[in-house]
This record gives sequence, structure tokens and C-alpha cells, in this order.
Amino acid sequence: MKRLSYYVIGVDLGATNIVCVLSSKDGKIITKDTRKTFGDKGKEKTISQIINSAKNVLREGEKLGVSAKSILGMGVGGPGPINSDSGVIHIAPNIPGWINTSLVKELGNELDLPIFLENDANAAALGEWWLGAGKDVDNLVLLTLGTGIGGGIIINGEVLHGIGQTAGEIGHMVIHEGGLLCGCGNRGCFEAYASAKAVVNRTLSAIKKGKKTELTDLVENKLEKITCKLVYDTARKGDNLCKHIVEETGKYLGIGISNIINIINPQMVVLGGGMAKAGELLFDPVRKYVGEHAFNAAMEGVKIVPATLGTNAGATGAVAFVLKKKGLLKKIDCFDQNMVRFFQTCIHN
Amino acid sequence: MKRLSYYVIGVDLGATNIVCVLSSKDGKIITKDTRKTFGDKGKEKTISQIINSAKNVLREGEKLGVSAKSILGMGVGGPGPINSDSGVIHIAPNIPGWINTSLVKELGNELDLPIFLENDANAAALGEWWLGAGKDVDNLVLLTLGTGIGGGIIINGEVLHGIGQTAGEIGHMVIHEGGLLCGCGNRGCFEAYASAKAVVNRTLSAIKKGKKTELTDLVENKLEKITCKLVYDTARKGDNLCKHIVEETGKYLGIGISNIINIINPQMVVLGGGMAKAGELLFDPVRKYVGEHAFNAAMEGVKIVPATLGTNAGATGAVAFVLKKKGLLKKIDCFDQNMVRFFQTCIHN
Repeated sequence: MKRLSYYVIGVDLGATNIVCVLSSKDGKIITKDTRKTFGDKGKEKTISQIINSAKNVLREGEKLGVSAKSILGMGVGGPGPINSDSGVIHIAPNIPGWINTSLVKELGNELDLPIFLENDANAAALGEWWLGAGKDVDNLVLLTLGTGIGGGIIINGEVLHGIGQTAGEIGHMVIHEGGLLCGCGNRGCFEAYASAKAVVNRTLSAIKKGKKTELTDLVENKLEKITCKLVYDTARKGDNLCKHIVEETGKYLGIGISNIINIINPQMVVLGGGMAKAGELLFDPVRKYVGEHAFNAAMEGVKIVPATLGTNAGATGAVAFVLKKKGLLKKIDCFDQNMVRFFQTCIHN
Repeated sequence: MKRLSYYVIGVDLGATNIVCVLSSKDGKIITKDTRKTFGDKGKEKTISQIINSAKNVLREGEKLGVSAKSILGMGVGGPGPINSDSGVIHIAPNIPGWINTSLVKELGNELDLPIFLENDANAAALGEWWLGAGKDVDNLVLLTLGTGIGGGIIINGEVLHGIGQTAGEIGHMVIHEGGLLCGCGNRGCFEAYASAKAVVNRTLSAIKKGKKTELTDLVENKLEKITCKLVYDTARKGDNLCKHIVEETGKYLGIGISNIINIINPQMVVLGGGMAKAGELLFDPVRKYVGEHAFNAAMEGVKIVPATLGTNAGATGAVAFVLKKKGLLKKIDCFDQNMVRFFQTCIHN
């Protein structure tokens, strides 16, 4: 029997960019299409953008010798909450007008491919597990530190979806009952304290209370220009308020991550998203506060590391999702243990 | 080939009682031995109590026709953190002098049986999954509401142990950063707000601040006699302070449980331990506050229910643990899905 080569299309549908890759079944990116998401031009426009970018990588792939027949399917990592089974995005908080969108059906009308939908944070976690920071472990938690805090949990090499497919909503774990108001309407959520947006909000709040900082000069008093990156960069230059905000962020991240370590005790916590690019200025205080809050026995062997796939994480994970759906990317620990148990059971009975 | 009957001994080593059962492989309890734990008489005394109770159920079993040869092994659910692989209890917080105790080795010296050690909350979760409240689901989280809050997580029919075997330390999830001091040394832990001990502490604190309550008369001003049960019973009679404490407890439990639902999104949250006996007075406010804090999509399909195995949960789970170790109690979802994937992979390659 001839061993065929398979290819998969992976799409990361973000509020800012749509990243679409054509990948070999080993995760090698054959060709890639990145385009700015025109979310404000309506749902149909964004869907046609996804279709066009998929058609583009198909065309480019064909030129490179990848026949349409050899493409197993297309995976899409989309903003949640989603339903993988029905292929529906319930709400895309940062893309206006996306409510109960049957994305799989709409894409399937235009693309002659099996299409699979996964939550974007889950896809990124799967990507990092397959080929990124977590490629040598089977149990990890990914946090994407951006406007919000997204979460994806991998247990025994599989995404933890949960009964309503909403597992991993780590950003909305309450860490300060009755505290800061979160975009979700609750108070005290992890992301209200530790996301990139929270960093900016806490900085603005301190400035409004009269705290002095170089930031005001740097943005020429246009406070709306203050970004999380600018806060970290200015902390690096020694600005006291920014240093304080950075330390405080480490504390809040440390508390949230300690909670995850105490509850799930994964092998690895992977931090991705724009904020994770702050490097040691972010990771050093995080590790310090996690050391203070998580149990020693829980901490042992848990690595806290940056994501390594960058903007490819979601699309790579979407590829992995298709391979898993096709039975071509196996759960390692769980599978082997169960094979052993299965044969033991056969022998015993 | 003759189909043999197998039996298993399950032990729940608690700070108050040692519960030891001889069980059929279907979980039918053949005979049971319960004795008060003499923890204050030293480690050797407690270990000899476990050995004596095991020998007692073996003897009783023999009278009922269960031969020693047909006993597969003994499972022990012990206070954590523990290491299942090495059979060591690192620390038993409520049994003095238990530090790095090689329990499996010590029991093995006296009992000619394979012995397996599991964390007590994990064992209780496994028991409830096998034969209790969760017998029809494969994904649940058990919380034992007692002096502390213990947690056990079952995913795809298997205990989530984590890399350092400390997964499920839900009682030490921070829900109020910088808040009440917890026995673990941190501030703001879930159990510092919502355990039975926390209920008593919050009540005492309110009384010391001058709040009036029937409780003071009921205990004849001996405030040390106030128990969590008494607070719930007095709330039931209409006492305002107790009603307030009960409502507040529902809020804190609701926040902690919402966090778990947002992160893990299990099919079921099972509440056990003494406090769960308060019934609807506990469950009604919990469900109300969970409804306010967890995402709707995460809440759908999640049941919050009382544990049903009572004081047998730990010992029953210890039996289940032995059966799992022997490959005789299978992971349902994960196993079947993987068999399908395995055959798909064979066909594809």
C-alpha cells in the first residue's frame, strides 16, 4: 500500500489578522497567507476573507506540487465560545455581528473540504503542544495574555473541552471576589487584573490618582496612547510607576497561575500573546509570586515558559486539530496506558 | 477458562476514623470495619490500626466464603500530599507525626497483598464516579467541605493526578487576593472562606464585632462550641446572623465552584463532607451564585449535586483505584475514542 502525503489547511481567525497556512502532516508550513481582518465590514466580508485566503494557499500549494486531492481538511481556530460539533461560533466578542455563526457550513459551501472548528485558545494550546514550547510534554496550560486572557488546557495530549465546550475560560476565574469590574460583567476576574488591557487600566488609574511617570511625556499627555508594551518598555528604563505596575502584574499573574498549578498541576504553563514578549521582566516576577503561592509539591517539575510559535500558534493548532479528528495525531500517555489496560483486561477475563 | 470472582480491600484513612471495606469487584461491600483513628498515639499505632482493620475484614470475609487467594489487593485513600508511585504520604496535616511515611511499604510488611496508595479526596471522587452521584458521568469534580476543602477531579473516567500528583488542591485556589489568612500560610484561599471551619470563623468574627445571634444562648456563651452544623441549624430556625452567614457561604462556594466550571467545565460538581449535609440551605444559594458567576455556556449541562456514598466514598474509591491499577475498571470515553482512532490510523497508514 502506497504511503500518501497528506496536507492540511489551518486558519487562525483573529480580530486583528487572519492567518492561513497550508501545512504538511508533520507541521511543515508549505505556504502562508496573512491578511488584516476587516471585522467592521460585516460577517460576510470576514467569511469571504477566510475563503479567499484558503483558496490562495491552495493555489500556491498547487504550484509547489500539493494536489487538492492530498488535502485532508481545513481547521479553523475561532473566537469562543464555539461548538466544535455543530461548527458554530456562538459569539465573537471582538468581531462585531458574529452571533451564532454556522462557520463550518458557510465555509463548506465554498470550499470542497472537510472543515473543523476549534476555539482559538484551544487551537493555540494544541499548536504549542504539537510543535512549540510544549512539544515534549503531554499536559500543559496555555495562557494568551492579550486584551483578555485566553486559556487552553491539554491533558494527556488532548484538549480539555468540557461538557459545554467552554473549559479553559481561565481569564474569568475570580481571583479577587468583589474586586475590579471585568468586561464579562463580573467582578474580580483574572483578566481584569492581569491582561494587557488591565495593565493599561491600572496604569491610567494610577496616573489619574496623581502618580508621576515618564509615560505622560512619552505620549505627550495623550493617555489613550499608553499601551501595555509601552508600560513594560518604560519600566525597563527605570520609571517607578511602570516598575510598580510590572511588579503588581507579576503578582496577579502569579496568583492566577498558582491557582492553575494547584488545581491542574500541569507539566508546563505556556504564556503567549503580545504581553509575553516582555520576556524576563514579566517572567521573573511571575515565577517569584508563583513560588510564594503554589504548593511546593505542585510546583516541582512545572515549567513556566514563553510560547514559541508566535503568530503561527493558532493556525498550527488548527492543523493539529484536523489531524486529531482524522486519528493521525495520537494521544500519547492515555492511549498507551489504555492499550495496556485493555490487554490486561482481556487476559484477566 | 473459569471466570473468577475477585475482591478488593479499600481503606479510607481519615483523621477521625479509619474505614475499611472488603468489596466485590462490582463494589458490593461484603464486610466493613470502622474504628476511631488514634492519631495522637503516634504513627505506628495508626498503621497497626489499619493492619488490624484489614485483618479483621479478611477474617470476616473468610467466614463469608471469600478466600484470601481471591483478593486482588488493597487500596488506601490517605491524606495528601502523597506519592502514589512510591507509596509515600508526604504530610498528613491532621494526623500528628506523619511526615514522609512509606505507608505502602509498612503495610506490605504485615499484609501479603499488593497495596496501592491514593490521595483521600481523589479516592472519594473516584468512589462517587464509580458508584455514587457521578456513576453516569465521566467528568466530575468532587469537593469535600470539611475542616478544609478537598478536591478530586475526574476527567474521562480517570483521576487527574498532575505532574507532582497534587492536582485537585482546589481549597487553595485564591478567590480573594490579599484576603483572609489560610492555614496554608497564604491569604484568600477558597477554604479560608468556604470550608466548615471558615463558616465557624466568620460567625465568631461577627459575634466578636457585636452581632446578635441565638447561637450565644444555645452554646451558653461557650463560643468554642459553635459548629458549622449549628450555624446551619440555627439559620433554619430564622436567626438573622446565621442566615447571613449561610448566604455569604453560598456566595463564596458559588465563586469557587464557578471558577472550577469556567476552567474545567465538568459534567458534574459533587459536594461531599459534613457541610454538604445542610441540603438545600447550602445548595440553593450555591446554585444561585454559580448562576451569576459562571458563563451560561459553561453552566449548561453542569449539575451541582450532593455526594451519595457518605462515609463509604473514600474506601469505595480506594477499591476502584485498585481495580483501575489492575486494568479491571476502564476509562470509558477516552478508551473508546482512542480505539476508534487507533483503527483509523491503522487503516490510513
